[in-house]
Amino acid sequence: MKIGVIGGGQLGRMLSLAGTPLGMNFAFLDPAPDACAQALGEHIRADYADQDHLRQLADEVDLVTFEFESVPAETVAFLSQFVPVYPGAEALRIARDRWFEKSMFKDLGIPTPAFADIQSQADLDAAVASIGLPAVMKTRTLGYDGKGQKVLRSEQDVTGAFAELGSVPCILEGFVPFTGEVSLVAVRGRDGETRFYPLVHNTHNSGILELSIASTDHPLQSLAEDYVGRVLKQLDYVGVMAFEFFEIDGGLKANEIAPRVHNSGHWTIEGAECSQFENHLRAIAGLPLGSTAKVGESAMLNFIGEVPPVDKVTAIDDCHLHHYGKAFKVGRKVGHATLRCADRATLDQKISQVQSLIKAV
Amino acid sequence: MKIGVIGGGQLGRMLSLAGTPLGMNFAFLDPAPDACAQALGEHIRADYADQDHLRQLADEVDLVTFEFESVPAETVAFLSQFVPVYPGAEALRIARDRWFEKSMFKDLGIPTPAFADIQSQADLDAAVASIGLPAVMKTRTLGYDGKGQKVLRSEQDVTGAFAELGSVPCILEGFVPFTGEVSLVAVRGRDGETRFYPLVHNTHNSGILELSIASTDHPLQSLAEDYVGRVLKQLDYVGVMAFEFFEIDGGLKANEIAPRVHNSGHWTIEGAECSQFENHLRAIAGLPLGSTAKVGESAMLNFIGEVPPVDKVTAIDDCHLHHYGKAFKVGRKVGHATLRCADRATLDQKISQVQSLIKAV
Repeated sequence: MKIGVIGGGQLGRMLSLAGTPLGMNFAFLDPAPDACAQALGEHIRADYADQDHLRQLADEVDLVTFEFESVPAETVAFLSQFVPVYPGAEALRIARDRWFEKSMFKDLGIPTPAFADIQSQADLDAAVASIGLPAVMKTRTLGYDGKGQKVLRSEQDVTGAFAELGSVPCILEGFVPFTGEVSLVAVRGRDGETRFYPLVHNTHNSGILELSIASTDHPLQSLAEDYVGRVLKQLDYVGVMAFEFFEIDGGLKANEIAPRVHNSGHWTIEGAECSQFENHLRAIAGLPLGSTAKVGESAMLNFIGEVPPVDKVTAIDDCHLHHYGKAFKVGRKVGHATLRCADRATLDQKISQVQSLIKAV
Repeated sequence: MKIGVIGGGQLGRMLSLAGTPLGMNFAFLDPAPDACAQALGEHIRADYADQDHLRQLADEVDLVTFEFESVPAETVAFLSQFVPVYPGAEALRIARDRWFEKSMFKDLGIPTPAFADIQSQADLDAAVASIGLPAVMKTRTLGYDGKGQKVLRSEQDVTGAFAELGSVPCILEGFVPFTGEVSLVAVRGRDGETRFYPLVHNTHNSGILELSIASTDHPLQSLAEDYVGRVLKQLDYVGVMAFEFFEIDGGLKANEIAPRVHNSGHWTIEGAECSQFENHLRAIAGLPLGSTAKVGESAMLNFIGEVPPVDKVTAIDDCHLHHYGKAFKVGRKVGHATLRCADRATLDQKISQVQSLIKAV
């Protein structure tokens, strides 16, 4: 079976590492000459709107999936004429746009921060009057890793903010005094079977994920599964989805979904019986889903900007390096480490060891 | 770091799957147009004696390693002029030739079956008179998976046996009434640090490995480590080596070594903290060695001739498929499954489930 992936970054790379042992081959459509997935599959170097090359991809592969949710709707529609596409156009339409996304959560009875659609500075002023400050203004589309966002703390921040974010459609979200950020990675098969990984505690820095720790018997696990299950069913979703929540007052408020394998699920490569990457491929290929059970106590630490010296990372017991083979650049995710330990105390100690390496670079 | 591999079959493929997350790239020199490792690295399609292409490989990579031990000595000597080669020429010289191999065991005080060098039918007749029947005659070089061997049970089998195996240098080995076959996979770093995986029980069928089960606290573990340690030191070995033993009367007799990652170590991909593939790469790259500790109870079952339907293999809990992407052919190793279970009883049950699939194809 040959899988086409729109995007050829580290997620595509890890999909191929998981799928090759299942007997799959991969083709990545990505305009970047140095797309790091090309080490592990065919690289079709083309723009995401290039219909000739999209057609070539569709002709070569059995099905198509995505590495990122901001893929143009036209790309999905075009491909869908020729080849099965998972997740489907509706899931991408919703996930691509924060307004659609939050509106869907509301319709499904999933708590969210207060939010409002912003099409102008006047909309923003009205929304701030209603929701209050502090609040976060985000572009409806194309934001990631803290980009396309502005925290509004005072009236001064509000003035001209719409123009500052490019005078594009935005969403205003009320500030949530959260006690933690958690994500639930789920997978749903073509037949509707659904499995959930354990909730993951996430720590961000400047909007970029730094640390994920897989939980054990989290008290909010079943509530999170209920919420995510509603979305998966609503979208008739196929594949892996990550759902980010704010943890607040012993409850959850929905932040956003990612209709794809997700950074907060990278720990599953070693830390779960079947990784999010293998499970995404199993789901879209119509294979039985794999176990989402944990193997030991696990955490994931991102390497941002650069990977610490490989001999230092590999010297840490229980540590598994995932180097993406990308050029080092400030703020860029260039690798991660998974820790898989026998117990939580050891895990915490190893997290500190890896953090020391990160600080040293 | 770019690694050159002589040979581009499943071992090369699994080396790349293990090394890519360490930030390594791979080039495989293999004459086969369909070498299955080419999905995961550059394929230099050339004969192993083709000096132009060997030179190209040497120029492109940081170091060279091998997928099989019968690589010509001239190839190793040629490459060594331009690039570090691990394991070294001496290890390959010994491992390639059963006479050198058994003689080294004897010199190092490691018990072996009785053996004799056979250069003619007269040598064979004399050796049979001394060693007795039954015995096994094997070509000194190029044998694998039961090929290049003949079991001699009666005087009738002895007649003309030298010509039958091609009138090439052979070795005669006395029959060993073994109770089991075990192998020890070891890894030795450039600095001499050595680690051992748990002893593995192997079951063969017609000379081809069918099933490997990793042991727990095997009573012969330390004896095996002593023997293997002697060989590693003698050869100043760098990389992974597999050492096959006959288990007999509560002791061990050396059968043979493989100076490379080995089929009986495939279970380590999921079943050990750091796989034999990653540890081989760590060793030759001068990185710290990884833990050889088991994760759960593990076994490996080979898929020979064909891989059972992927949806059936993936439906078995605790089962990890490794499809080599090779054309199916009778007697050919085309994949394997690793089982990693919480306890031995579950493992035995899962082994039966996989065996049922194998019998059904």
